[in-house]
Amino acid sequence: MGSDPVSRTDAARFAQVNLLAVPRDLAFDLLLFCQRNPRPCGLTEVSDPGATTLSWCAPTADVRRDAHRYRIWRDGELEQTTDDATPWWREDLVTFAIGCSFTLATALERAGIAFVTGGVYRSDVACAPAGRLAGPQWVSMRWMAPADALRATRVTARFPSAHGAPVHVGDPAGVGIEDLAAPTYALATTPPPPDGSVPVFWGCSVTAEEAARAARPELMISLDPPHMFGTDRLIEELAS
Amino acid sequence: MGSDPVSRTDAARFAQVNLLAVPRDLAFDLLLFCQRNPRPCGLTEVSDPGATTLSWCAPTADVRRDAHRYRIWRDGELEQTTDDATPWWREDLVTFAIGCSFTLATALERAGIAFVTGGVYRSDVACAPAGRLAGPQWVSMRWMAPADALRATRVTARFPSAHGAPVHVGDPAGVGIEDLAAPTYALATTPPPPDGSVPVFWGCSVTAEEAARAARPELMISLDPPHMFGTDRLIEELAS
Repeated sequence: MGSDPVSRTDAARFAQVNLLAVPRDLAFDLLLFCQRNPRPCGLTEVSDPGATTLSWCAPTADVRRDAHRYRIWRDGELEQTTDDATPWWREDLVTFAIGCSFTLATALERAGIAFVTGGVYRSDVACAPAGRLAGPQWVSMRWMAPADALRATRVTARFPSAHGAPVHVGDPAGVGIEDLAAPTYALATTPPPPDGSVPVFWGCSVTAEEAARAARPELMISLDPPHMFGTDRLIEELAS
Repeated sequence: MGSDPVSRTDAARFAQVNLLAVPRDLAFDLLLFCQRNPRPCGLTEVSDPGATTLSWCAPTADVRRDAHRYRIWRDGELEQTTDDATPWWREDLVTFAIGCSFTLATALERAGIAFVTGGVYRSDVACAPAGRLAGPQWVSMRWMAPADALRATRVTARFPSAHGAPVHVGDPAGVGIEDLAAPTYALATTPPPPDGSVPVFWGCSVTAEEAARAARPELMISLDPPHMFGTDRLIEELAS
């Protein structure tokens, strides 16, 4: 909890997105992959090749340096992290602004739904492939009361570009997750969930990043989690 | 009204789509154009390059010959119409299945909303451009009572891939249409609308076809209206 509740409130009004920049020659496959797998890969915006702004959702920001930290990938391997990706920029890079679970978490909070944040897991549900891109669906999980899981479904379904409704509820084995205590990425240090809570799973933008990475593009720029990219669009502007 | 109410009912249960096949080198721009202009260009599916089926929505149909009639375009000019586009097929063609207003008309009918079908018009609302693609938003219009226009908004918003909610209601001058009696395409020979009706406008898939045609691709294959392409997906499967 920050010390300035006003600016926290203001910040929470705006949507955050995950960013992924890939060369134009892979961008068609990635756009098709996102179109075919909208729950994990809901799109807020896709840039023109070489564009350094997102003209609809962040027209005054520079996608190369206005996020907190970036990861630079070469042939699918992490080369380094940096707070300014400008030196790596190329005119053929297409930037994908992919929905982020911070938006759905804010929607849950606004609806008064109490939840305990779990982590991000690789499921065994295969995405629909597209060209060179394929891979499993990654999911983020939150614990909540069963009745709240149903209400959370209605609340988050309003935000299809930020993962929309959950993709699974209950037994993690149903989507091939063996141990909820061992997420690939922990989203928060959290208290244990109240008795009777059920795990609720949403598609996660790691899906697109991992599928693109596995295609080993010559160059790829992504964000360094947990920091995402702040847009100028209200969360409510993304509602269906 | 047909003579076989059972098969009419069955047919109306399934979604129809507009088809547009363009070379791979234009397909990225078209996919981006559809992503940026989802109301006129909502996508049901996009094929892999060269694929002659739509694996999700019509896995057993051949997109080259299972529609009633096709139009073959060369450099943006109509070359001919045909009932079998197979001789023109190329391995680099990507097929876009774009939402069709028959789906929204069926949704209106099911909701018991009485309407009189108008036509298709070119509005003066500019689409968000994407690469080589740009152009105005085309709209289809239906007359209905004002209260039904509001209910129609809720009913059709459930089908984002079939144009979703209306884009305009009331004075046609608001979207640059001068004469409702002179549509570019008449959708039906209809009785005059009841007194007090208002015109309600939805995005139309002609938008994508006209934008692609204006880019003068070497080859483009589209459907010959009013015949669309029948899918194996229930209209309800497209609901958000």
